[in-house]
Amino acid sequence: MAADAAPGFVYLEALPEPGAECALEGDEAHYLSRVVRARPGELVRASDGRGGLATLEVLESRPHVRVLGRERSRSERTGERTLWVGAPEGDRADWLVEKLAELGVHRLVLVDFERAAWERAEARRERWQRLATAGLRQSQSAWRLEIAPPVPLAEALRVAEPAARRWVALPGASAVRDWAGGDAGPRVGVVGPSPGFSEDELKVLQESGFAPIGLGPSRLRTETAALALASLWQAASGV
Amino acid sequence: MAADAAPGFVYLEALPEPGAECALEGDEAHYLSRVVRARPGELVRASDGRGGLATLEVLESRPHVRVLGRERSRSERTGERTLWVGAPEGDRADWLVEKLAELGVHRLVLVDFERAAWERAEARRERWQRLATAGLRQSQSAWRLEIAPPVPLAEALRVAEPAARRWVALPGASAVRDWAGGDAGPRVGVVGPSPGFSEDELKVLQESGFAPIGLGPSRLRTETAALALASLWQAASGV
Repeated sequence: MAADAAPGFVYLEALPEPGAECALEGDEAHYLSRVVRARPGELVRASDGRGGLATLEVLESRPHVRVLGRERSRSERTGERTLWVGAPEGDRADWLVEKLAELGVHRLVLVDFERAAWERAEARRERWQRLATAGLRQSQSAWRLEIAPPVPLAEALRVAEPAARRWVALPGASAVRDWAGGDAGPRVGVVGPSPGFSEDELKVLQESGFAPIGLGPSRLRTETAALALASLWQAASGV
Repeated sequence: MAADAAPGFVYLEALPEPGAECALEGDEAHYLSRVVRARPGELVRASDGRGGLATLEVLESRPHVRVLGRERSRSERTGERTLWVGAPEGDRADWLVEKLAELGVHRLVLVDFERAAWERAEARRERWQRLATAGLRQSQSAWRLEIAPPVPLAEALRVAEPAARRWVALPGASAVRDWAGGDAGPRVGVVGPSPGFSEDELKVLQESGFAPIGLGPSRLRTETAALALASLWQAASGV
């Protein structure tokens, strides 16, 4: 599962129309010129992180990076995958973000639970956006992981997509045996913070239609459980 | 998926017999006295990482930790789960080890592939053992992730368990639709290094009975692919 002479793939907030030129800056310019080492005349791909995809021709790669739009298309998504995740321990949120972005989760909602709230989320936001962009490049996805600022559980429930299928990760619950056809329609998974859910929270989640889902016999850390659920969704979407 | 007033669980290379006393030292003593804050009279659980489990009574927790064996049992495993993994980028091996240990992988074989060899594996070994132990405590498992020193692919193939079911993670391959009953018998999964497999390696793996398995539509980093496969195995073992 590796780069293997992968063509360049970059994140561009605004994709150029076919025939239009555009300059790349910052991380994306660095990535194309220094990491992928794209040369003038080569074709690379780009995404705007919101379903838009483009093929670009590299016009100039050093010292400035300029590209020419060649094609544009849109990717439709059959079901938005959202995870509501409680605060993990320490710095584990960084790799939670990186891995969820790689594993095709569309939206990460940081949820404050009774026993643990997210800290310094605003200060860490820029770093997380960069990790989400790196995940998009790595997975060559049309979608960039969106990270919603922390909200209390009650607020997350209030604005939740009514049509979404809903699960809550619980140790000891049964696994989902067959995900076939499981990529249609929106879905929401909830993973508790490192000290766990309170009894009230569990009750309100179950009353709100979140079905318990087990991820195997062992107790998992918050970030590991989120990633395991994302892995199951991702594998099912390839079925 | 969290501690939630979890009882203490420690790794002890030699579990005391019922009625026998034993002193804890180092990380495990620290964990019991400072992290879990176990008090005299409390019961805790322990594993030797090789299938042995014990219930222990805390006799003394500060300044020294002493415990008394109360019960011993053995956990049988229905199938050894082995992953052969190529070198990921940078420091990503650390969390590869931590997460595989949490997700119930029994044996990690570091495999040197044509395009990437493991570096400084011997120097990092002690750190990895500690991460494996932390994973055992977290998952409260009877088994500790065993980490085999780097070997070339040919050598890994030579000593591979002949009866094991075999998969190789490949982008674009089909997912396994139904893992039911999938926890019986040994299994081996192979994940390539960050620059990917060579053509020869892919050929020899397929000739050696490794069936391609897809982990979803996106390209995954080495460590993410290993973790995604471990998550699928783990969820299937809870079916």
